[in-house]
Amino acid sequence: MPQPRTAARRVTIVEVARHAGVSTTAVSKVLRNAYGTSPQMRSRVRAAVDRLGYRPSATARALRGRTWTVGVMLPDVRNPFFADILDGVAEHLDDTEYQLLMTCGGNDATSEARVTEAMIDRSMDGLILIAPVSSPAHLDGIARTVPTVVIGRHSHSARYDTVNDDDFTGAGLVVAHLAGLGHRRIAHIEQHETDRVRLAEMPNALRADGYRHAMRAHGLGEHIDIASTTYTRDGGHLGARLLLARPDPPTAIFAGADVVALGVLDALTEAGLSAPGDISVAGYDDITLAAFRTISLTTVDQAGHHIGVTAAGLLLDRITEPGRPAAHVKLTPTPVVRGTTGPPR
Amino acid sequence: MPQPRTAARRVTIVEVARHAGVSTTAVSKVLRNAYGTSPQMRSRVRAAVDRLGYRPSATARALRGRTWTVGVMLPDVRNPFFADILDGVAEHLDDTEYQLLMTCGGNDATSEARVTEAMIDRSMDGLILIAPVSSPAHLDGIARTVPTVVIGRHSHSARYDTVNDDDFTGAGLVVAHLAGLGHRRIAHIEQHETDRVRLAEMPNALRADGYRHAMRAHGLGEHIDIASTTYTRDGGHLGARLLLARPDPPTAIFAGADVVALGVLDALTEAGLSAPGDISVAGYDDITLAAFRTISLTTVDQAGHHIGVTAAGLLLDRITEPGRPAAHVKLTPTPVVRGTTGPPR
Repeated sequence: MPQPRTAARRVTIVEVARHAGVSTTAVSKVLRNAYGTSPQMRSRVRAAVDRLGYRPSATARALRGRTWTVGVMLPDVRNPFFADILDGVAEHLDDTEYQLLMTCGGNDATSEARVTEAMIDRSMDGLILIAPVSSPAHLDGIARTVPTVVIGRHSHSARYDTVNDDDFTGAGLVVAHLAGLGHRRIAHIEQHETDRVRLAEMPNALRADGYRHAMRAHGLGEHIDIASTTYTRDGGHLGARLLLARPDPPTAIFAGADVVALGVLDALTEAGLSAPGDISVAGYDDITLAAFRTISLTTVDQAGHHIGVTAAGLLLDRITEPGRPAAHVKLTPTPVVRGTTGPPR
Repeated sequence: MPQPRTAARRVTIVEVARHAGVSTTAVSKVLRNAYGTSPQMRSRVRAAVDRLGYRPSATARALRGRTWTVGVMLPDVRNPFFADILDGVAEHLDDTEYQLLMTCGGNDATSEARVTEAMIDRSMDGLILIAPVSSPAHLDGIARTVPTVVIGRHSHSARYDTVNDDDFTGAGLVVAHLAGLGHRRIAHIEQHETDRVRLAEMPNALRADGYRHAMRAHGLGEHIDIASTTYTRDGGHLGARLLLARPDPPTAIFAGADVVALGVLDALTEAGLSAPGDISVAGYDDITLAAFRTISLTTVDQAGHHIGVTAAGLLLDRITEPGRPAAHVKLTPTPVVRGTTGPPR
């Protein structure tokens, strides 16, 4: 029963977008008062809405039904740890009708807002957000709109599930290993964080807390020394240079992530030093490259693949039963001792 | 002018899917006779189509208008070279309304078919396919349905644009560098390829051709020696072990990709050998890790970022003007000499 093209019908968002000369995403943003709309865009969209008599339907999403699409937001595409998580998510979805689409959030709240809006606009059935830096209110807003699971953020939200490694404990494992080898001047490289909420929820902040706590527990409180940079190779390089320039440099460096440790090793080579001969180096994540023999990095295995499988399972549950209570899963990390750590000189 | 819910209207694919108890993707696949449908699925969908009187509209896509979405298919998420391409694509799209969504094709024709179907089903405005292994007929079929640009495939299709590095020339640059250092037994590790078309179109096959051609041009034809594995770190590890076990092992190994070279270096370390002291090693791609001082890999820069920018530009052109002639862009690679190559012992 095809409908005649001339029949009276609801004006669509596509027509509003055409009339206003903007994208449907832009229309959707204006209508939801979302981030990233200019005053010009808002006035053009409002004029088109008035002229065409568009009335957004609250039930449009439900009427459209499932799109069988799951969106995953990564902080960046260069940290190989996220590939482990993705493998786990993909493996779980492989047995289902769901298609996985990925986006990059860029470790920045504005960029994350744009990307999550875009995924919601494209009617994805569920989202997995990896280490988002957005505010709890923004994350709750996303989770009210679409079933959401968050990886790498220690939150107690009632709106979304979380899957985390026990970062506080994991950092303690590294300090215990290094202290057990006889190190006392054990320094840490963290990702700089000032936001009060992120200091309580982000894995990087919990690793720094775990480091401080463990140092004190081992009677090494006076040797706590943190270089505050970023979780990138450049951040590791910079952090190592800062620490090596101290009057009394550390004999061991605990980098908060394996990519950071790679930057530390690079800085050591540059300075004519080696690990563990001159200085011990440990990372966190156990990326596949850590087992590479030229590197052989001591680290902490936080089971990225298992994190991905768990998150995908929780998300499919939540898509089926959106109102169920939020589950907060914390996985226990295991230390992996390799060649970059040894007794102090 | 909202349309009453009871009015006669076109049956949608969502209703067919619900009635058949399958996904809209599955319905779409059955209707288009695509890959990956079971006889059971086909009969359920056909029954639902008959019962509901569904008639797929050829103009539905056009009527829906743009979705302002560009899909990028990567072969895998572990080869860091693809991150360079993605950076370029993202940079170009940043100034536009388009949202980038990524999928993984898995280096496998069946998996690629599923993923590209999924992107087409989700009405993406254009696709960028990176090093697809699908048949030319399948790629032409995709390009007939949606504006498409292909990276890393030397095709002369009239349907889609391509952006490639001149892989044949690039391989010659590596051989020239190694021969210039005095090496004669220069071996190569390739990605195994048997398909006649892929032998003519895939970058890996052209690099192997370029290697053979350059060896002959330098009077080293008798020393041509190829280990045929895969473009992964494991493939490099296996290839190196095969080559080192030869009665007369090579003094230099040209790995077809940097990730392969990382596997070669790993195998050397395992065997108690080092580069370039015992054996010279060169890669291809210039991934960011190649510049890492602990590795310092001699390689070929194929300007991944520039490839990405170029491909995104071509795609937006093609979305605007779908019928324009296909452009086939070939970029000139440059050698990057670092620490893993030197004179033979």
